[in-house]
Amino acid sequence: MVPHLITALTGPINELEQRVLDSMPAIERWFRLEWMEHTPPFYSAVDVRNAGFKLAPVDTNLYPRGWNNLTTEMLPLAVQAAMAAIEKICPEARNLLMIPENGQPSSFYLANLAQLQRIFNMAGLNVRLGSIDPAVKKNITFELQNGDHVTLEPVIRNKRRLGLKDFDPCTILLNNDLSAGAPGILEEIYEQYLLPPLHAGWTTRRKSTHFKCYEEVSKRLGKLLGVDPWLIHPLFDRCENLTLGQDSGFDALQTQVDSVLTRVKRKYKEYGIKEKPFVVVKSDHGAHELGIVTVRDAKDLQTLQERIQTLNKGRKSPILPHDFMVQEGVLTQERVNDAVAEPVVYMMDRYVVGGFYRIHAGRGIDENLNAPGAGFVPLAFEHSAQLPQPGVKPGASVPNRFYMYGVVGRLAMLAASYELEATDPDAQDFE
Amino acid sequence: MVPHLITALTGPINELEQRVLDSMPAIERWFRLEWMEHTPPFYSAVDVRNAGFKLAPVDTNLYPRGWNNLTTEMLPLAVQAAMAAIEKICPEARNLLMIPENGQPSSFYLANLAQLQRIFNMAGLNVRLGSIDPAVKKNITFELQNGDHVTLEPVIRNKRRLGLKDFDPCTILLNNDLSAGAPGILEEIYEQYLLPPLHAGWTTRRKSTHFKCYEEVSKRLGKLLGVDPWLIHPLFDRCENLTLGQDSGFDALQTQVDSVLTRVKRKYKEYGIKEKPFVVVKSDHGAHELGIVTVRDAKDLQTLQERIQTLNKGRKSPILPHDFMVQEGVLTQERVNDAVAEPVVYMMDRYVVGGFYRIHAGRGIDENLNAPGAGFVPLAFEHSAQLPQPGVKPGASVPNRFYMYGVVGRLAMLAASYELEATDPDAQDFE
Repeated sequence: MVPHLITALTGPINELEQRVLDSMPAIERWFRLEWMEHTPPFYSAVDVRNAGFKLAPVDTNLYPRGWNNLTTEMLPLAVQAAMAAIEKICPEARNLLMIPENGQPSSFYLANLAQLQRIFNMAGLNVRLGSIDPAVKKNITFELQNGDHVTLEPVIRNKRRLGLKDFDPCTILLNNDLSAGAPGILEEIYEQYLLPPLHAGWTTRRKSTHFKCYEEVSKRLGKLLGVDPWLIHPLFDRCENLTLGQDSGFDALQTQVDSVLTRVKRKYKEYGIKEKPFVVVKSDHGAHELGIVTVRDAKDLQTLQERIQTLNKGRKSPILPHDFMVQEGVLTQERVNDAVAEPVVYMMDRYVVGGFYRIHAGRGIDENLNAPGAGFVPLAFEHSAQLPQPGVKPGASVPNRFYMYGVVGRLAMLAASYELEATDPDAQDFE
Repeated sequence: MVPHLITALTGPINELEQRVLDSMPAIERWFRLEWMEHTPPFYSAVDVRNAGFKLAPVDTNLYPRGWNNLTTEMLPLAVQAAMAAIEKICPEARNLLMIPENGQPSSFYLANLAQLQRIFNMAGLNVRLGSIDPAVKKNITFELQNGDHVTLEPVIRNKRRLGLKDFDPCTILLNNDLSAGAPGILEEIYEQYLLPPLHAGWTTRRKSTHFKCYEEVSKRLGKLLGVDPWLIHPLFDRCENLTLGQDSGFDALQTQVDSVLTRVKRKYKEYGIKEKPFVVVKSDHGAHELGIVTVRDAKDLQTLQERIQTLNKGRKSPILPHDFMVQEGVLTQERVNDAVAEPVVYMMDRYVVGGFYRIHAGRGIDENLNAPGAGFVPLAFEHSAQLPQPGVKPGASVPNRFYMYGVVGRLAMLAASYELEATDPDAQDFE
């Protein structure tokens, strides 16, 4: 049973929705032209937050791991998009090797792997799972709750190719975000397609680079829609090379927090928004032991300082310098029953193929929901994001709301495409 | 409410289904490679008949007019496929002009037009309907049962382009099969994309050419599956330039009927099929006043002869020589309640986007169902043809059955692609 979803169907977001709907053919054409010049990531997922007065992406994942949360009704869209993606990248492909995350897989993650395997199998590929976890020395088969089976096999690397016993794939799909660094076993693979490319991993990626690209495309879409790009874009700043253990490091962070908060406050004032502005401090790449911290005021800053001091105490080695991003916090006004919810848009190639709500009963409207907790419940989108209902009053139609989420999701995917182009180590070879 | 569908889920067709499922990745790869060399028709619909022992297309329509019969759940697939099609043909497209059939539109046909307009609008185009019917001299707006409106506008032709008042399309989509001949107003349009091309109309098309191409591709798919291509292919022969009014004409037809019947009987014997074989006589292009005639035996032949004599009587002008096709009749073993049903597979670009059952309570299992009659009821496929369930016992899964229909539908579409290449009047320009 699908619980009643209280999407924030009122408020100023409706004006944005109306603009998006009115511009639908222009938006679709704009994306179409962009994809003539830029290559979409193979697959992606974007966390979107709807504050009731603005709608913005807060995270773009290039190794989505929640495919199991899509409904069966959405799968044909994913299969069709997978067909289109394969056709463009490697039409002659026969065998696909999927590389999952290392470590003991949770039942959710196994369901995700089974779903991906199913999608690419339906799209016409033999799909097997090869683990690059050194602990996986022989085949391991897991049984899922629905009776399906998932088998992880140890990969075999020779000088030029990566494969499995009796399985020589032409394409390798990573479902492993390489946050621990790109392992040598994946390097210097020149004869096979490696998707996404290694520089899409967190060793190379920087959130601030992504949001810089997002700022650029959101300005252009904003112009097309005739709206302030801030309505779809979270303000941010980068704090480079901060040594949090030192006072100078904390001071620099505080200055940056103040700067972003001031810009956010100015925007809130411009739009007459009564909510309390806040910013989110997060590592600019991968994860940091500090975690993701919400800062609303001086009190929160003090708490942050105490937290850093605690981290510092009792350590043998000092905290190393690290890059952070200070990002405008985007409230979420979405609720499922009483729990805070944020939509996650799933894309394959250039197409939105589905999505779900991430719901966290134990978290506040200004907190990160992508956290463990008994209250995390995925709730699949009931409708496709491709079927808006023009003519319906803004805010009165869930399909129209989903369409808008899909536009913002695709905008963040486009930003990821710009980002990957800018960070491609081989790009100069073709210039 | 969807009535209970009695698909023939038993019988020798199960072996074919099993082969198709087992070969799924190979089939998908084969199609992928074919589409690298050949261009799929922009859209198409294929009538498929499931005889319980064989499954074959009997008609391939390049101007499908039943889009209204697809369910809302299937629409996102059509939108996504339309996006892919437009992106390949004319990514910069902004305005699409759709040309409907001439004459007074039925409410069904209007619903079809509204659905197509919706699909292409969602795919990012401004869509308007331009009539080439000389009777349409000013805009006419029709109201549909669901409250939607469809407006037909008279087209405006200048020397180089076709358009509407204040609407200059870059792409023109025909939903008019041109069976009355390609009108001058559509000729010599070199600056705009005309889809499908004029030679896809019935002035140029020949059913026998289509089935000749189908024979070729079905042999290749048969080889891939390791099955006799006859299991997916209806035997046929062409009777060129028959003057039915003359004894010699009828004799030639009779000889051809006997020849095809003999070949069918041989196949039935080979497979131990107890059903009574039959053939269908139809015009090789467009429609003929004789209609579509089922011939089982000498008695049917005599009835056919009498019918021709009746046609001949009281005519001022003699029946002109015409080309006919004698095609192996394919029984349909599908039923919805007690009515005979045949599946129709709908495709956009290379993708199966849905389908429905054509159900005719007043017709027999060996008769053409595409005929007017109170009993004609479309019943949308409940499941996508893209989600087979491997591992399920053959014949026990409707999605698996639909997948097989989708494969045969796409095979007929591939044949249409070969056919359009072979008949392209401009092809030599590029050689």
